[in-house]
Amino acid sequence: MTPSDRRHLIAVARGDAEPDLVVEGARVFSAFTREWLDADVAVAGGRIAGVGRYAGGERVDAGGRCLVPGLIDAHVHVESSKLLPSEFARVVVARGTTAVVCDPHELANVLGADGAHWLLDASRDLPLRVYVMAPSCVPASALESPRGALGPEAMAGLLRRDRAIGVAEVMDFPSVIAGDPDVLAKVALHPHVDGHAPGVTGAALDAYAAAGIRSDHESTTWEEALDKRRRGLWVLLREASNARNLDALLELVRRHGPEYCAFCTDDREPDMLLREGHIDAMCRQAASAGIAPEDALVMATLHPARCHGLAELGAIAPGFRADLVILEDLASFRAAVVIADGVVAARDGEALPFAAPPVPGWVRGTVHPAPLATDALDLGPAGASVRVIDIVAGQLITGAAEEPPAVRDGRVVADAGRDLAKLAVIERHHATGRVGVGLVRGFGLERGAFASTVAHDAHNLVVAGVDDASMTACVERIVALGGGIAVADGGEVRGELALPVAGLLSEEPASVVVERLDALVALLREQGVTGDAPFMTLSFLALSVIPELKLTDRGLVDVVGARIVPLVV
Amino acid sequence: MTPSDRRHLIAVARGDAEPDLVVEGARVFSAFTREWLDADVAVAGGRIAGVGRYAGGERVDAGGRCLVPGLIDAHVHVESSKLLPSEFARVVVARGTTAVVCDPHELANVLGADGAHWLLDASRDLPLRVYVMAPSCVPASALESPRGALGPEAMAGLLRRDRAIGVAEVMDFPSVIAGDPDVLAKVALHPHVDGHAPGVTGAALDAYAAAGIRSDHESTTWEEALDKRRRGLWVLLREASNARNLDALLELVRRHGPEYCAFCTDDREPDMLLREGHIDAMCRQAASAGIAPEDALVMATLHPARCHGLAELGAIAPGFRADLVILEDLASFRAAVVIADGVVAARDGEALPFAAPPVPGWVRGTVHPAPLATDALDLGPAGASVRVIDIVAGQLITGAAEEPPAVRDGRVVADAGRDLAKLAVIERHHATGRVGVGLVRGFGLERGAFASTVAHDAHNLVVAGVDDASMTACVERIVALGGGIAVADGGEVRGELALPVAGLLSEEPASVVVERLDALVALLREQGVTGDAPFMTLSFLALSVIPELKLTDRGLVDVVGARIVPLVV
Repeated sequence: MTPSDRRHLIAVARGDAEPDLVVEGARVFSAFTREWLDADVAVAGGRIAGVGRYAGGERVDAGGRCLVPGLIDAHVHVESSKLLPSEFARVVVARGTTAVVCDPHELANVLGADGAHWLLDASRDLPLRVYVMAPSCVPASALESPRGALGPEAMAGLLRRDRAIGVAEVMDFPSVIAGDPDVLAKVALHPHVDGHAPGVTGAALDAYAAAGIRSDHESTTWEEALDKRRRGLWVLLREASNARNLDALLELVRRHGPEYCAFCTDDREPDMLLREGHIDAMCRQAASAGIAPEDALVMATLHPARCHGLAELGAIAPGFRADLVILEDLASFRAAVVIADGVVAARDGEALPFAAPPVPGWVRGTVHPAPLATDALDLGPAGASVRVIDIVAGQLITGAAEEPPAVRDGRVVADAGRDLAKLAVIERHHATGRVGVGLVRGFGLERGAFASTVAHDAHNLVVAGVDDASMTACVERIVALGGGIAVADGGEVRGELALPVAGLLSEEPASVVVERLDALVALLREQGVTGDAPFMTLSFLALSVIPELKLTDRGLVDVVGARIVPLVV
Repeated sequence: MTPSDRRHLIAVARGDAEPDLVVEGARVFSAFTREWLDADVAVAGGRIAGVGRYAGGERVDAGGRCLVPGLIDAHVHVESSKLLPSEFARVVVARGTTAVVCDPHELANVLGADGAHWLLDASRDLPLRVYVMAPSCVPASALESPRGALGPEAMAGLLRRDRAIGVAEVMDFPSVIAGDPDVLAKVALHPHVDGHAPGVTGAALDAYAAAGIRSDHESTTWEEALDKRRRGLWVLLREASNARNLDALLELVRRHGPEYCAFCTDDREPDMLLREGHIDAMCRQAASAGIAPEDALVMATLHPARCHGLAELGAIAPGFRADLVILEDLASFRAAVVIADGVVAARDGEALPFAAPPVPGWVRGTVHPAPLATDALDLGPAGASVRVIDIVAGQLITGAAEEPPAVRDGRVVADAGRDLAKLAVIERHHATGRVGVGLVRGFGLERGAFASTVAHDAHNLVVAGVDDASMTACVERIVALGGGIAVADGGEVRGELALPVAGLLSEEPASVVVERLDALVALLREQGVTGDAPFMTLSFLALSVIPELKLTDRGLVDVVGARIVPLVV
């Protein structure tokens, strides 16, 4: 802010200069006291000048409705939306979100630090403030194969950028707790460090917090969240497509108040964003679960801002950024009018048009696996018992089961009758030819196969299927698309969604992406698949840092043991 | 913290290395949830490793008593204690305070930026963490005469130091509200800026907050404090020797909770520190006024830390600084054992010995007024009505009265019968010979005079009296002492306290300073003076930024009008 802009803002506050914009006749939410004040709000130069009565300026009539600070997502991977940053902004700004704190580690796994720099570039002039945390865990573990590792020097380079505000979730909690110097060097890069410690408690959690980590979004029970809050970790209550933790965690708010709690979405499929919403949906869900709307609102506004040291965000107060939402009511939390940086950015659930930046060519063309060897999908010789990844509905964690295998010609094979699909992860960055194979239970897949280049976190090519021909067809089609999702049956591709940007993002509007994904899910339903968000479930089966059993291009991963284990026990 | 220290802390947290110290058998306060947890606390390398059960290390038995974070004073001028920084530390650490956020503007008025640098140097190795805000208002206004002005470049130099954490209270609120570029340039030096806005409300308060100021400690009513909190200003609840605001402000906590509220003492005479205490006394007072002890404690620990961005202070949690207090109980808040930076620093109300740094010579010898002219104390020719400064008991504000003057030989004179004492402020830094004179009501002084080189904020020589010979005797004695306080009657000095360091601080122990001040107050009582802390009252009569009527070496100051006014109306 220039000195003359500051003087003008002060003059508007005093009443000696005309505001740019006035929201009049509002019930104004005071985040610092959780009150409602009947007043107008004056805006000048993208900032709030004051809360009172003002003449002049563009008038926005609140008509007695509630005016709240712009909503903030405390932790999100925008890549999970499968949308370009500008399209993601269009979707969430329409729902009242005006700031997000991103960990662009999906882009960074595929494109290196350049991917995170691109996110900052691509979000410079959006009606959404996009803050970036420097990805700390690329690779997520030594058992994954991204395009390359992101070291502390590349992270430090990222942290020199505007809007880069800290170190992103340190997922490799076993190394932190063990005191590994390499991971601690990353933690030491910045005083603000997000955490990721699913199920970590007691002395191990003390060790994790003692490393200097100050948030966590992985709690699945309120008792786990309480343990973290006692240790000074901000509790980020998550409601993701495949990790719906909010209802369970609200008990912490009921018992101990909303302090040191904030909302986040982490990973949301585009259909969830379009159909349920974003942080507005979390407010609605919390209020319908009996949380005071004012408590929900501070967890959606001021608390995420304070968690991340964003001192000028999250409240309607003089000098704060003019990010404002007129809500229809405190039950739906529907955004009637959204003001971002002092300018009306959305009305009645639709973002106003804005210029989206062009997509540079180098973010495309990232899918280069070696040609599949004829035995690439072979599960190997049979034994008495094999390890099976058990999907847990609505969660990112999996179980590790042991079952007698189905056997054909002495080799382990998929067994649709027992819901045992074959799973393969194919290295796609450097054409190494590495393929990991295993078995997964819980999709309900009866026929064919489905595959994706969205495969956390290294984003190699993951494919699940009960016949090898369909699996191969999916893989070949996705390679031809330069990344994406495909469904096949009888060895033929039946449907697809191209994700040309890093193999992660579509260049289509959200409505088109959702329509295509819906069609793909419908195909999967025909092939027997049950459960919510099967593509997201598939994509997390490759993530080697969330217990219990996962699969990467290097093989089956025993997450707690941090080691590769054979299929046959 | 070195990487190897961090690894050791994590190992202690895990249980794989021995702690330096363990507080065992405590009820541990969890500042983030306001709970009490029965546990031990392990300390290593001056930090908290964890809250659990630990073997080894130096054992400190809490015996089931409450263990709380070290108390923090959110805003204090240590100079008001009249003690050297080391002696101040000895006094307050014994009472559970382990960190203070100082505005050293008294030293800066006398010694320039060097005074603030000296405070940082003199407090480097104390058992008390001393943080410094860069003084923003030297001079407090254009109507005061310090040794020199402290400009933005000198402030920036101070802000480069360790433990310099922001811009100190911006007392010149009229200039901020008016958008004065010079004062706004100081505000812009750092994102963290303390405020000082007594009685400022409405659009003026919006303008003050819009400048980027984020705290205030000048509220005298809970409604004023609420107005500030709504605007995102941290409310620093003050209980100073001459500004006892806590009781009135606690209603804000009762109605709206303790969030965005923190305790501060601002200015405390040494006798108040020794007899009432420090932040411990504010907790005691709040609890006895019906505030939950847990709410009092967060206002005394975590909240001042958060207000000032001290992310590692104010809570007992892994990785936080090991500043801890075992309390006798939650009524007295008496500190049984104080641990500072992981080391026992006080037991049973007595600080353990530590090395105090030597006092450099250049901080002495700062009192150089011009010899008093024979007519220096003359109040001038009489008129029908004269302005009178009205003391308001227990407050820093004064009233502005108009009275018919007492007259002798056509000149206005003091009138003990109507409690109208003569007041003079004598410039003492540069021997300019400037003397301001006026009348003050409310001391009750019947005979003689008293004087001090503690005279906010420029710390010229202030003297009040009902006979000129006694006033002159006080002034001459104080000059001979190189600064201090004196009481005279019948033209003879009856008692004195030398304050050789900057004319503000004694080099004696606190008990000696209190004894001498008590003796001086007893002398004043004999001379008719009533009311608490008369020397502090005297010292604030020269402060040109707290309404309504004050006196500096330049004359009577109409504070709201920011101008010099004549004695005769």
